[in-house]
Amino acid sequence: MDYRHLLEEVYQEVLSLDLKGTIATYIPELANVDESKFGISLITTQGAVFSVGNTEEKFSIQSISKVFALAVVYPILKESLWERVGVEPSGNPFNSLIRLENENGVPRNPLINSGALVITDCLREIFENPIDTVLEFIRKVSNTPDIDYCEATAQSELTHSSRNKALAYFIKSYGNIKSDVEELIESYSYQCSIEMTCTELARAFLLFANTGVNFYTNEELLTKSQSKRINAIMQTCGFYDEAGDFAFKVGLPGKSGVGGGIAAVLPGKFSVVVWSPLLNEKGNSTKGMKALELLTTKLGYSVF
Amino acid sequence: MDYRHLLEEVYQEVLSLDLKGTIATYIPELANVDESKFGISLITTQGAVFSVGNTEEKFSIQSISKVFALAVVYPILKESLWERVGVEPSGNPFNSLIRLENENGVPRNPLINSGALVITDCLREIFENPIDTVLEFIRKVSNTPDIDYCEATAQSELTHSSRNKALAYFIKSYGNIKSDVEELIESYSYQCSIEMTCTELARAFLLFANTGVNFYTNEELLTKSQSKRINAIMQTCGFYDEAGDFAFKVGLPGKSGVGGGIAAVLPGKFSVVVWSPLLNEKGNSTKGMKALELLTTKLGYSVF
Amino acid sequence: MDYRHLLEEVYQEVLSLDLKGTIATYIPELANVDESKFGISLITTQGAVFSVGNTEEKFSIQSISKVFALAVVYPILKESLWERVGVEPSGNPFNSLIRLENENGVPRNPLINSGALVITDCLREIFENPIDTVLEFIRKVSNTPDIDYCEATAQSELTHSSRNKALAYFIKSYGNIKSDVEELIESYSYQCSIEMTCTELARAFLLFANTGVNFYTNEELLTKSQSKRINAIMQTCGFYDEAGDFAFKVGLPGKSGVGGGIAAVLPGKFSVVVWSPLLNEKGNSTKGMKALELLTTKLGYSVF
Amino acid sequence: MDYRHLLEEVYQEVLSLDLKGTIATYIPELANVDESKFGISLITTQGAVFSVGNTEEKFSIQSISKVFALAVVYPILKESLWERVGVEPSGNPFNSLIRLENENGVPRNPLINSGALVITDCLREIFENPIDTVLEFIRKVSNTPDIDYCEATAQSELTHSSRNKALAYFIKSYGNIKSDVEELIESYSYQCSIEMTCTELARAFLLFANTGVNFYTNEELLTKSQSKRINAIMQTCGFYDEAGDFAFKVGLPGKSGVGGGIAAVLPGKFSVVVWSPLLNEKGNSTKGMKALELLTTKLGYSVF
Repeated sequence: MDYRHLLEEVYQEVLSLDLKGTIATYIPELANVDESKFGISLITTQGAVFSVGNTEEKFSIQSISKVFALAVVYPILKESLWERVGVEPSGNPFNSLIRLENENGVPRNPLINSGALVITDCLREIFENPIDTVLEFIRKVSNTPDIDYCEATAQSELTHSSRNKALAYFIKSYGNIKSDVEELIESYSYQCSIEMTCTELARAFLLFANTGVNFYTNEELLTKSQSKRINAIMQTCGFYDEAGDFAFKVGLPGKSGVGGGIAAVLPGKFSVVVWSPLLNEKGNSTKGMKALELLTTKLGYSVF
Repeated sequence: MDYRHLLEEVYQEVLSLDLKGTIATYIPELANVDESKFGISLITTQGAVFSVGNTEEKFSIQSISKVFALAVVYPILKESLWERVGVEPSGNPFNSLIRLENENGVPRNPLINSGALVITDCLREIFENPIDTVLEFIRKVSNTPDIDYCEATAQSELTHSSRNKALAYFIKSYGNIKSDVEELIESYSYQCSIEMTCTELARAFLLFANTGVNFYTNEELLTKSQSKRINAIMQTCGFYDEAGDFAFKVGLPGKSGVGGGIAAVLPGKFSVVVWSPLLNEKGNSTKGMKALELLTTKLGYSVF
Repeated sequence: MDYRHLLEEVYQEVLSLDLKGTIATYIPELANVDESKFGISLITTQGAVFSVGNTEEKFSIQSISKVFALAVVYPILKESLWERVGVEPSGNPFNSLIRLENENGVPRNPLINSGALVITDCLREIFENPIDTVLEFIRKVSNTPDIDYCEATAQSELTHSSRNKALAYFIKSYGNIKSDVEELIESYSYQCSIEMTCTELARAFLLFANTGVNFYTNEELLTKSQSKRINAIMQTCGFYDEAGDFAFKVGLPGKSGVGGGIAAVLPGKFSVVVWSPLLNEKGNSTKGMKALELLTTKLGYSVF
Repeated sequence: MDYRHLLEEVYQEVLSLDLKGTIATYIPELANVDESKFGISLITTQGAVFSVGNTEEKFSIQSISKVFALAVVYPILKESLWERVGVEPSGNPFNSLIRLENENGVPRNPLINSGALVITDCLREIFENPIDTVLEFIRKVSNTPDIDYCEATAQSELTHSSRNKALAYFIKSYGNIKSDVEELIESYSYQCSIEMTCTELARAFLLFANTGVNFYTNEELLTKSQSKRINAIMQTCGFYDEAGDFAFKVGLPGKSGVGGGIAAVLPGKFSVVVWSPLLNEKGNSTKGMKALELLTTKLGYSVF
């Protein structure tokens, strides 16, 4: 497979479509990003790296961090984790409280905000310094020691955290969050503020294309079953209220973030990351969605 | 891969677990089925057939027929189909009306009752005799000319169709159903009453493991993209409010029916059908779910 | 109290406000009504009649008929009636199915469509000819022998009954409707098509201002308690999703219809009916709402 | 009217019914109340006081304080208040977030928790010391200078405020709360912790039976229209998801609290307060509901 040529073709075709979208504006750190940025990185499970566009520039990974937090907690708590959070798609926007009320404070899945807050609560119960733990994990799986969060973004997130505090207090009222909510939201905000390039993120996601084995150290961080299950959750829940559409058009397990990044994998074959900050109305990168759709269409295969 | 041994192992292990469940009782034709029935058929894309248990006995495929109806309509209406029905998981029980009201009569996906009624309405607009068309399609893809519906089941379904009539009239009130509702429900009831054996159903599902090409005639019934997309919809929407759990534990696109059947595929590898009439509270076969979970666990791979 | 002068003042003030609204257009019989029509009739519990504007012209009473159907059924079934229908406001539009699903087919109250369908089902269980029974009741309490339904309106209603059929089949699927749905919808459509003038309707509503005693015959049709309870239901549930606003601004128990009529009572004092076909977005007459608000404001009293 | 005899009769009849219920247990200050307590106080608009049972013992008025907060804010903000909170019944439990999400952070009415938090936010914008303001108001209208909050209850409420914090942060995320949420919840908790006897509370509610005029000073605190409108809101929204049932059975505007108190009025006639700490599943006092039902039944009149 000539991935270099494929990526170049996808890149040019997406550019030619002149897709519109809206940049996230709720904090200045996201609002001020150059909206023309666009990059794609693909890394095969043999370690071959293919990149096109702005792939060496850091961006805010935002909700994509939810997958890493899950990957840290899951091997420790194992299947008992699922007593505190479900694995079903929510069919609702990312920050909805509606289902939570009907389901007694057990979030539908770990990739919506409510579920991610429970995962961060788990992290806080296990680790003294949860944000350092997640950072260390990402540095290890991406083989990039200098990955860090952006302090300014974290602070801005904190000043715009009413909705997440509402979610956290709501879950706490059902007893499914143990932390002090203020401290929990702080951990969560730092986690969302981690910055990576397309290539770094693709390196990190190689873990999920590689049955849970760290490509760079050969260490088994997740069992085969855990890796498969995280992929399943990404497939059914990784794109909020657009997960079905992503499965339909792209057919890869993946996760998007409001910073414009989308990370996905074809298990056994490759990881791929696209970044473009213009979002559609569901909060997913318009160019990112289209690029991945073209990628699997041109490839002629996906998980399906 | 020694599928014969694998199936035998799964079969024995499931039997040993003594799983409970409830047989569907709303019509006598389902209620009177021997609840100890249990069979598994797997067919590879090379055509090798492996069977264990009650695989040569007809059962009512019920909602699994929704996939065939979709496979008939989709290549004709192409992407315009999605103006009338979505591709997102519903996060609700199979016969829920709740989302429909918030979404103006466009069902979330074609594999819940509301969406399947719209698909049947499409069939009725295109074909004079929609139930014959679906039967012909199934006979062709399963290479089994004698497949038919059960008249008694169809009549029983008709006498228990209040909820489906409610769904149909509701969608019609938004203009998204054109047929006379009584006639539509009749078509739909016959479609649900089709009877097949595990092996016949596995033969028919080979289509979705085989990129849309009829294994027995080499005819391309679905484009590669259409086949992939139907698999994506099965993955995210094939098990009602348990689709996430099925993706999580099994990791195969599939569809279940209230008659106790589950049909699934590993694209490029095989189709597999399990039948056992005892259902869990979500309406999916308990033994079927467990058998497929064990199957992909023992195999060590799934789509993820 | 100089009601004549009061009504004249209210009438002129409403006219001067030039209130907008939309006429109901789903059937020609409503769409073709002259939208400038506007009349107010008030009758005291001493029998004094005050009228201004188009008070002697028949209009389609539509949902106001729900109160009469309730008044026929309640004294027969007594408190057992409330096992089949609740007395709580729905907080949803008049034809919503959402709550019904969460509440197992027991409608929130008898004045929304779902609840009224259950009441009509009760009527059909008790009376051979339910529509005649309701008509007889209205003729008696309004002291007007020639009140009748409009055949053309009833037929039009029948051809636009998908939503109501959806409600009926939905309730039937929970076992809370016994009738054949087609026949039930026919009874219901005729009931909604009854035509009365403002004055006739005010005479009929005198029953609810007069503790359940027919003013014209002195017959006790409802016990004091039943009359009080029907008024309570009108107060909390008579205006769909605008019941709170009507209580807030007007402060009288009442019921509106999509034909533009509103009937209300001040128990012990008077009944009052306003008719103007222009509706607000909740389906209540804009001039009617304003007229009654001005009436109780100028009067200086309401039930509160 | 021999109110003395009437109250005695109601009191004895309720006692004889041996009604069950559950005491509120989420904080020790409520859990430790003697559950056999039961008192009724009625005060006519002429100032005649009638009492039976434990009417001189302080209890926690809890949500009944919402009516006083509303009565302080409404005459200041006038009709502009309703841009921030609605007047429609919610049809949901007192602390539900569901509707809030569909209605963009504007609570349905000021007598559910979400709406009361907005009212407290208004208080905090206007007054430097909102809890003192509310206390002063209650002291004035009840003609009882020593009314105060219970510090222990307020502190306990604060340690059990996750759900209310969730509501407040949620509304704040829509911009409809301006206060710091921690401070807002503190004000709100103190307000809920005010303690009064049946007789004191009946004196205070005389305001709403007396067209907004303070019976003890003759000062007009609310206009006639404001008083009528607060009564209308109590009627349609004062009992959470049981408002319709209270209107139906009792027929008086009123408000209940989880401390077991219910305060109600018959405008122009009397105010009445019942206290008994055993609650039904909707959170309303079982003996209180029954006592008021018997009262209006025996009286033979209500607002309806």
